[in-house]
Amino acid sequence: MTEVLEKLTPAGRRVLDVAAELFYGQGIHAVGVEAIAAAAGVTKKTLYACFGSKDQLVTAYLVERDQRWREWLRAWVAEHASSPREELLAVFDALGAWMERADFRGCGFVNALAEIPDPDHPGRSVVFEQKRWMRQYFEQLATAAGAADPGEFAGSALLLCEGATVVASTDIPGAVQHARRAAEVLLARSAA
Amino acid sequence: MTEVLEKLTPAGRRVLDVAAELFYGQGIHAVGVEAIAAAAGVTKKTLYACFGSKDQLVTAYLVERDQRWREWLRAWVAEHASSPREELLAVFDALGAWMERADFRGCGFVNALAEIPDPDHPGRSVVFEQKRWMRQYFEQLATAAGAADPGEFAGSALLLCEGATVVASTDIPGAVQHARRAAEVLLARSAA
Repeated sequence: MTEVLEKLTPAGRRVLDVAAELFYGQGIHAVGVEAIAAAAGVTKKTLYACFGSKDQLVTAYLVERDQRWREWLRAWVAEHASSPREELLAVFDALGAWMERADFRGCGFVNALAEIPDPDHPGRSVVFEQKRWMRQYFEQLATAAGAADPGEFAGSALLLCEGATVVASTDIPGAVQHARRAAEVLLARSAA
Repeated sequence: MTEVLEKLTPAGRRVLDVAAELFYGQGIHAVGVEAIAAAAGVTKKTLYACFGSKDQLVTAYLVERDQRWREWLRAWVAEHASSPREELLAVFDALGAWMERADFRGCGFVNALAEIPDPDHPGRSVVFEQKRWMRQYFEQLATAAGAADPGEFAGSALLLCEGATVVASTDIPGAVQHARRAAEVLLARSAA
């Protein structure tokens, strides 16, 4: 799939940009390939020539969303923190900044999973890999921050991140600030 | 909506049972009213006479799911715990028991929210109310368990529950056990 993304034609690029916005904003099943092709100004034939199938287009959307998320998160953390401990907590601040966006509608990966019950759909493993990466990223930061059990802390931090993203999608305020406070308590305990 | 559920005809009952299974198992958009009516052995006209619209049927599904969840969770906790502190942690054990079910596919409310971007859809407020109830339930148990700040603990516990439900939908093992351990740490700190 990474190869498909690297070799996109200008038409394929437009299709993927449109698909990414509509899939995240409205859901995967709610948006048909006709609507995507029309909004991108291409024919359905061109769309299928670029991506093969709607499932593959969904998968390309998820792969690229994950790539961009990792790059954005790493850059945000590097810019806003100056010690390993700050970096760890800055992940929650980054999450909060993302939630402030006008188009925020929960986690695009979790939302996609809700619509992909088929265990053989290639998009599912992209979602799984995305969550494993987040956990590994937390573990790497927790190791640098001197946590006694970085793996245990990373697992908890992942739960808090995912929980905050869910709760921020409801009308309960302050979810990510709450997650950050809980992470601080767990980190203090892990550092002891 | 509660009135609609109390006055269901046998045909309406069959429709709602079928809809609940298909909406949770396959998603809301993936399942049409034709398929639901056919599986319930009723006409589309009967389905609409009972529920008015697909949006109302989705809302009825969510309202009843929430009612059943609260009853099941309270009963499970009462059966498996014998002190306020045990009750608090038993919520995570209940969550774990639910996740063991063959049909587990994440949180039905969060999954529905992913497919309901329309802020005016009546189902959204049912999801919000469900999360507020979970938080209140945790706060009530935390108060009984003598937590220093039951509201703060309840907010964290909700994050851990929601996070565990997301992570348990991926291939990362042990999410709910991890959430329970984190809750114990936060509770010990809150009790100090």
